[in-house]
Amino acid sequence: METHLARHHVVIVGGGFGGLQAALGLKRAPVDVTVLDRYNHHLFQPLLYQVATAVLSPGDISAPIRQVLRGRNTTVLLAEVQSVDLARKVVISDGGEIPYDTLVLAMGATHSYFGHPEWAEFAPGLKTIDDARDIRERVLLALEAAEREPDPERQREWLTFVIIGAGPTGVEMAGALAYMTRYSLPRDYRRVDTSQARVLLLEGLPRVLNTYPEELSAKAREDLEKLGVEVRTGAMVTGVDDRGVTVGDTRIQARTVLWGAGVAASPVARTLGVPLDKAGRVKVTPTLNVPGHEDVFVIGDLASLVQDGKPVPGIAPAAMQMGRYVAKNIRHRLAGRLLEPFRYHDKGSFAVIGRGSAIGMLYDKVRVSGRLAWGMWLGIHITFLVGFRNKVAVMLDWAYTYLTKRRDVRLITGLHANRLPRIEPERLPGVSEERVEESGAGLAH
Amino acid sequence: METHLARHHVVIVGGGFGGLQAALGLKRAPVDVTVLDRYNHHLFQPLLYQVATAVLSPGDISAPIRQVLRGRNTTVLLAEVQSVDLARKVVISDGGEIPYDTLVLAMGATHSYFGHPEWAEFAPGLKTIDDARDIRERVLLALEAAEREPDPERQREWLTFVIIGAGPTGVEMAGALAYMTRYSLPRDYRRVDTSQARVLLLEGLPRVLNTYPEELSAKAREDLEKLGVEVRTGAMVTGVDDRGVTVGDTRIQARTVLWGAGVAASPVARTLGVPLDKAGRVKVTPTLNVPGHEDVFVIGDLASLVQDGKPVPGIAPAAMQMGRYVAKNIRHRLAGRLLEPFRYHDKGSFAVIGRGSAIGMLYDKVRVSGRLAWGMWLGIHITFLVGFRNKVAVMLDWAYTYLTKRRDVRLITGLHANRLPRIEPERLPGVSEERVEESGAGLAH
Repeated sequence: METHLARHHVVIVGGGFGGLQAALGLKRAPVDVTVLDRYNHHLFQPLLYQVATAVLSPGDISAPIRQVLRGRNTTVLLAEVQSVDLARKVVISDGGEIPYDTLVLAMGATHSYFGHPEWAEFAPGLKTIDDARDIRERVLLALEAAEREPDPERQREWLTFVIIGAGPTGVEMAGALAYMTRYSLPRDYRRVDTSQARVLLLEGLPRVLNTYPEELSAKAREDLEKLGVEVRTGAMVTGVDDRGVTVGDTRIQARTVLWGAGVAASPVARTLGVPLDKAGRVKVTPTLNVPGHEDVFVIGDLASLVQDGKPVPGIAPAAMQMGRYVAKNIRHRLAGRLLEPFRYHDKGSFAVIGRGSAIGMLYDKVRVSGRLAWGMWLGIHITFLVGFRNKVAVMLDWAYTYLTKRRDVRLITGLHANRLPRIEPERLPGVSEERVEESGAGLAH
Repeated sequence: METHLARHHVVIVGGGFGGLQAALGLKRAPVDVTVLDRYNHHLFQPLLYQVATAVLSPGDISAPIRQVLRGRNTTVLLAEVQSVDLARKVVISDGGEIPYDTLVLAMGATHSYFGHPEWAEFAPGLKTIDDARDIRERVLLALEAAEREPDPERQREWLTFVIIGAGPTGVEMAGALAYMTRYSLPRDYRRVDTSQARVLLLEGLPRVLNTYPEELSAKAREDLEKLGVEVRTGAMVTGVDDRGVTVGDTRIQARTVLWGAGVAASPVARTLGVPLDKAGRVKVTPTLNVPGHEDVFVIGDLASLVQDGKPVPGIAPAAMQMGRYVAKNIRHRLAGRLLEPFRYHDKGSFAVIGRGSAIGMLYDKVRVSGRLAWGMWLGIHITFLVGFRNKVAVMLDWAYTYLTKRRDVRLITGLHANRLPRIEPERLPGVSEERVEESGAGLAH
């Protein structure tokens, strides 16, 4: 085996917004970088809801990590990290142990079902491409089932969609589903009127998008209701099963329930043996270190940091800033310099409701809503999308969707027909009742 | 329940090339049409290999059947047909029985493993979107595994791709894999040279693309070999397992084996109780009827028809011609007219090998190859692709791929890292042997 002249070895775990920026920031540094991710692609999560609602293809919002990080000093490996041994300075993965000189943890977060893991099966959340495909398939399948369903009561259940949690993802999903059932699909179905579909958005807190000012929450709620979404705030979900949701004493029958509520940090955080916040995030120092470990950084959704009395939010721009900061910090440390603490610059954030409707905050001061906010949201998302092909593909899909109102990426790829209701032949247009009696097809079987 | 004024009821099973054309041809006929398919989308199968090789997204080559058939007299239902009862004139589906006045069977074909169903697990074929995603994931995962693999012998196995069957699909897959490993990917990997990947194309018959003239077969073979594909004709596969393929006395170690060989008609054909050919296809009359059943038509890959001493090929144009013919036949029968027998007009067919290379036959006479054939192939496929969005998306993806040689739809979405080889830390660039000994990470565990 050849012996390498060992350079400083930086291990970055996670190829999301934070990890990618950290790796890119070290491209010309005198270090060797190893990036580990359990997926082979970087995912532009802010647009994932558009995969779940049949506007975009998964390939449009993802980029192979090893393509993005093509470069001299970076090795990319598909690996799932299970734990970190801070004392021995190794990361423990499915492929064995990997020693580091400096470690950057950027594994992000997953869903939290608030102590009800059994709800996951009935109410999928939206974090990965498989999640988005699963949700897309559930929604489309429910409409196919409604088209087959002879019983009006049960048809109603198939046409009821409940979204739990009115954060940005929940609001985006609710708006997109309402738009899709009201404007994109009605002409494609013959036996059901998809515009009669109920889309319910449930939120335990008193208002939607509670991290935004009250005025914007109110505006978002108004726009959602204009689209036909039934918004219920102060609604604490107490039960979720395969036929619906229970909210206190109220039962909502629904065959499709989606989860947009809790967030929990990657479980790897627990293996560090350091203090975590209640979402399982690592309480980092002002320089984004694990307390007592100057060689270990935690960034993005995995980091818990309070700045000026407010938590730094778990959004892409914060993760990217942290990633860039950490790369700079590593370069400076190697050069023997000290660095100022990390400062999050809140340039703004947006939540989109539907066609021509969004809300946003700029520089923590300026409030925007409606068409203006929507236009800004579009431009910003195209700008930050990774990869030229992706930018063009998404612009094309958006232009198409805007002009035609259609949603074409409507794929049910698995075989699911046998989970759908019985087809009553007498309800088919070409079939007379006599014809059914004649063939005996109307008999139970 | 309301009573319908029953019109003639045409049931079409299958929304592929044949079924779709049959339904479109009946759009203005005085009949009610019910289209049943187990998937919700029409699939442009000729481009499926480009999904499997990371050029196109599934959504680019599929269109929701109910959107294509939006129209007054057509009901589309997601249903899986299990059998047909010709005596009672009903189709038996997962959702119950559906009576028909006229039936069009267009369920197509699936893979055949020549009596070795146990090979299916190790050598997936390419018929559905799930198949294409599965193949894409296997290919990408093999490259990720090669990047992790410390043992050169086993790394070779991960970098060996065997395609069984040199029909159009096999040739297209082999050409695309060779191109991808040689031109698209090398710069993205650091520890392996993907351009050293072996792509083997095995064919039991004496030549590749045996339905084409010998001269074109020879040209195709030459172009494949130029791309770096090892072509082995007269190679009868006798064994397939998770580590490779056995061809007579020869063993080929390979972690990725793909199936492009046999075709078997949909098993529903067997439930008809009529004579089938050896691929399980229905031997139809010259008017494409099931013998003795003027109200039951069989079209596309499910039909076995000999014309002028030659079998009508199982390709999209033949299925489309059959679909249109049957629609016309049904309209004429209802009007009391008789129809001429079906005539397949062989306008041509193409097989593509790689960038700038294809072979083709026009009107069963003119032979084309090289860049000219490739250009024709491109134009024809864009023309016949269903849906405006799809045409634009595919053109864009092709332009991008042509200009950059990149393949960007490289998604591994499931969690598979733990099936990959151990990572040897001493082989990571930033890690010295001392460092490994120090941490103890090099120890077996």
